[in-house]
Amino acid sequence: MEGKEEDVRVGANRFSERQPIGTAAQDKDYTEPPPAPLFEPGELSSWSFYRAGIAEFMATFLFLYITILTVMGVVKSDTKCSTVGIQGIAWAFGGMIFALVYCTAGISGGHINPAVTFGLLLARKLSLTRALFYMVMQCLGAICGAGVVKGFKKGLYEGNGGGANVVAAGYTKGDGLGAEIVGTFILVYTVFSATDAKRSARDSHVPILAPLPIGFAVFLVHLATIPITGTGINPARSLGAAIIYNKKHAWDDHWIFWVGPFIGAALAAMYHQVVIRAIPFKSRP
Amino acid sequence: MEGKEEDVRVGANRFSERQPIGTAAQDKDYTEPPPAPLFEPGELSSWSFYRAGIAEFMATFLFLYITILTVMGVVKSDTKCSTVGIQGIAWAFGGMIFALVYCTAGISGGHINPAVTFGLLLARKLSLTRALFYMVMQCLGAICGAGVVKGFKKGLYEGNGGGANVVAAGYTKGDGLGAEIVGTFILVYTVFSATDAKRSARDSHVPILAPLPIGFAVFLVHLATIPITGTGINPARSLGAAIIYNKKHAWDDHWIFWVGPFIGAALAAMYHQVVIRAIPFKSRP
Amino acid sequence: MEGKEEDVRVGANRFSERQPIGTAAQDKDYTEPPPAPLFEPGELSSWSFYRAGIAEFMATFLFLYITILTVMGVVKSDTKCSTVGIQGIAWAFGGMIFALVYCTAGISGGHINPAVTFGLLLARKLSLTRALFYMVMQCLGAICGAGVVKGFKKGLYEGNGGGANVVAAGYTKGDGLGAEIVGTFILVYTVFSATDAKRSARDSHVPILAPLPIGFAVFLVHLATIPITGTGINPARSLGAAIIYNKKHAWDDHWIFWVGPFIGAALAAMYHQVVIRAIPFKSRP
Amino acid sequence: MEGKEEDVRVGANRFSERQPIGTAAQDKDYTEPPPAPLFEPGELSSWSFYRAGIAEFMATFLFLYITILTVMGVVKSDTKCSTVGIQGIAWAFGGMIFALVYCTAGISGGHINPAVTFGLLLARKLSLTRALFYMVMQCLGAICGAGVVKGFKKGLYEGNGGGANVVAAGYTKGDGLGAEIVGTFILVYTVFSATDAKRSARDSHVPILAPLPIGFAVFLVHLATIPITGTGINPARSLGAAIIYNKKHAWDDHWIFWVGPFIGAALAAMYHQVVIRAIPFKSRP
Repeated sequence: MEGKEEDVRVGANRFSERQPIGTAAQDKDYTEPPPAPLFEPGELSSWSFYRAGIAEFMATFLFLYITILTVMGVVKSDTKCSTVGIQGIAWAFGGMIFALVYCTAGISGGHINPAVTFGLLLARKLSLTRALFYMVMQCLGAICGAGVVKGFKKGLYEGNGGGANVVAAGYTKGDGLGAEIVGTFILVYTVFSATDAKRSARDSHVPILAPLPIGFAVFLVHLATIPITGTGINPARSLGAAIIYNKKHAWDDHWIFWVGPFIGAALAAMYHQVVIRAIPFKSRP
Repeated sequence: MEGKEEDVRVGANRFSERQPIGTAAQDKDYTEPPPAPLFEPGELSSWSFYRAGIAEFMATFLFLYITILTVMGVVKSDTKCSTVGIQGIAWAFGGMIFALVYCTAGISGGHINPAVTFGLLLARKLSLTRALFYMVMQCLGAICGAGVVKGFKKGLYEGNGGGANVVAAGYTKGDGLGAEIVGTFILVYTVFSATDAKRSARDSHVPILAPLPIGFAVFLVHLATIPITGTGINPARSLGAAIIYNKKHAWDDHWIFWVGPFIGAALAAMYHQVVIRAIPFKSRP
Repeated sequence: MEGKEEDVRVGANRFSERQPIGTAAQDKDYTEPPPAPLFEPGELSSWSFYRAGIAEFMATFLFLYITILTVMGVVKSDTKCSTVGIQGIAWAFGGMIFALVYCTAGISGGHINPAVTFGLLLARKLSLTRALFYMVMQCLGAICGAGVVKGFKKGLYEGNGGGANVVAAGYTKGDGLGAEIVGTFILVYTVFSATDAKRSARDSHVPILAPLPIGFAVFLVHLATIPITGTGINPARSLGAAIIYNKKHAWDDHWIFWVGPFIGAALAAMYHQVVIRAIPFKSRP
Repeated sequence: MEGKEEDVRVGANRFSERQPIGTAAQDKDYTEPPPAPLFEPGELSSWSFYRAGIAEFMATFLFLYITILTVMGVVKSDTKCSTVGIQGIAWAFGGMIFALVYCTAGISGGHINPAVTFGLLLARKLSLTRALFYMVMQCLGAICGAGVVKGFKKGLYEGNGGGANVVAAGYTKGDGLGAEIVGTFILVYTVFSATDAKRSARDSHVPILAPLPIGFAVFLVHLATIPITGTGINPARSLGAAIIYNKKHAWDDHWIFWVGPFIGAALAAMYHQVVIRAIPFKSRP
């Protein structure tokens, strides 16, 4: 009854582990890094700390710029057929996350989303100081990105909702909250799967493809929930669009796009740490 | 006349093998794992067995949630141009399989489909106990996923077919059965190709890209057969939608979406084991 | 004036070679395999030779099945918006080539196209025997694939052109021939780039991604030339559809879809061998 | 307070560096290559120099051919639904860059765009001689590519704008210039991220996926800015279309599609070298 960790690949070859229930896997090929401290004063005197924040700002700026501009191009046209369509909007959101995670993963970790930062903070992957700094930079970047889009054509922007997230007519606020929770769960669960150091050691495809499934997760959630909330799953994106649009009905629903993503991220962190990694059981040998 | 195995890559460089017909390749770089036993009692006391089942439940839940929600968003609109369109539905099914296989391959093997589990069981890649446990968890996950979508807007859901698979008007039940058989064949053949341990040793791109062609196979079958059956090729997906929709005409055709995928999966397992791997000839040196 | 081969990556760092014009690169990390003989009698008694042919048959069968079925689903609908659209057709062709090259690269080299086989034959990557066998199996597979689609709904199939390639109204036969030549050039050039053993040794991403750019090349040529010829660039695909459709106007243009792809493949082979690999200059040290 | 470089991956595990602000990272695993000289006379007697130029010509030729032909197929149809649509145009541009960067990265570095060449020249990744040679070959290739498309149907080509870039009605020239600057910034920033030798050493996925995010960056910028300028972000593409189309209103705006991309490329080079790589601070230990 020894605790040997399985080596499972796509398609599930034989499972060799014989691990008693209630204990966690013993890892032969991986050592869990210690949790990040909440405050790490040394960070604040490091250039890479500020560089990481700048990279998060720039990535969120470019994310909002491309996505909100794509939304404007679609909504301004009476016939969606002569635009890239709603599917094109979903590609813009998912594709930008793919490209930007690819570009910034080596600089800041490639969060580009306060909910992702929050989930990783709960799993103690980064310090509280760094998490707060990232979130502030993400929100500033999002505000600037949406602002530049408004600068192109103010009337068009304001007449078409400015890409702000609101619960669509016919859905309750509870529907919107639920859609945001599950949608963010999918994104943050994919991020955890892609960055799980234990899996990386076993599955050679995991770190190599990492930005692609993360981008696809964003694309897929947009396919499903654009008709319900316009799809937030990223509080910085929702905040940036809301501040620049700045109409009452956008602010009324705005709490949904912070509470929903943060609950979804927390659930994904819990699912990954408790069910998949079984970390709470680690202390019991 | 020695039995040297070829080392073929994309584009077929020279083929060096000189292998007598009727014998299988001798593998220098690979040892066939022994077939999984039908019953493996030790599994039942292992946490990773239950964790794998939970991962299959969660993946199938998220799969149905995103895909059926996307279907609802498309069908409720009179003009498909202002939705993600039928192509968007195909992306939702294929993209979710890509992301979920990526996320769960290291945990459960990433089946998310009773037909895939059945095909791998026939090839003796996992025990009967595990196969049945996976299928039950997949069906439960699918029912919950479709249920949550119905919870968003019950009237919309019931008025638009609930994403249930039925044979379209103008096609016979035989057409539907054929479409399900060939469609599942393509999916399970891709799964076998991606997980063939012998190929993995030779073709470095095989294990790395594995989740991507599997997701594309699902996407492509949907492009082709949505007009015929709505595309099942996944009995858990069909069962989940049928149970939550629960109308007579969905139940009338329901057997097609179990019999078709299981026949297709069996044919793919047979094609891979007999033609590609030539395993029945192995005993004859 | 030493002949050191450059090590260039995306984005072109410094180029260190100092190679006299008119000589080919000397390869430190790669030895050109000898050209395949035209006839290799030993092949004919090898099981992997026949297995490769079966794999080509099966791949071309599935290729025509999915793609022609997708075409039927689009053309039968008055409003393309409620189908996967012309773009969905392009995805079906390109995506199937991606998935099938992935699945069969290790078995047969993954040609699935007589023009690709012809180009690789000119570069002496496989024997004439094998090339002819592949082409026959590809054509048989294509005929069967189109036949199955016709079996679903004969009237619909015959009333909508059966996916056969013809030059569209308003274009001359010369336009169609040109479009086929350049389109096949792009595909076969990508195949050569992906399978260049010399590049594989230098660029780690080349063999790993190989099936993906090949599939994309097919997708892109379809985006551009569906309005002109319906896009052949694959004589087996054109022949299969023409035989099953079997109407005079399809046969009238049929030569274009053999002559065009074969010229395009020959030009790509020449471009790759003479310009990129500089093989004719190899003898002059 | 030692200057240890962090090893950050997607999702930001702990950050271990303690690097004083104002100093650059010390690299354990990477040595910065010396900047390329402005003039490198030895290049001119090297066959690979000319081969690289031919590869750039051929790639830009094929790029314009496929993309402008796709544009013609879409614009000539009254109902965009029966074409690949505007989204299909964006796929054509992005997909071709993906496939062509894949094919030519090992030959010429895979620029296919004078703005990319300009950005890499500013970062001293290639000599001025080579940069000018590439730009001339790119422009010649683009002119030939657009010319072939015009050859298919001259009337259709001239009646539909010939794929030339102009600022759309309702936008100012300043809007167009801004859109070109930010769009090219995204492309060139992705190129720098993909080719950063320091990151390559740390993040195993970077060199392997490189052509994919570069192609996606082009796709995404097209999704967003086709309604504004038709999207240039590539002076050779704009020049080729303008010369073959050759109407006054295309030439009036033409400067925007040189000035914008070159400013965007310069900003991306500056951002990457100063902020991300901190090269100006390198001299201060």
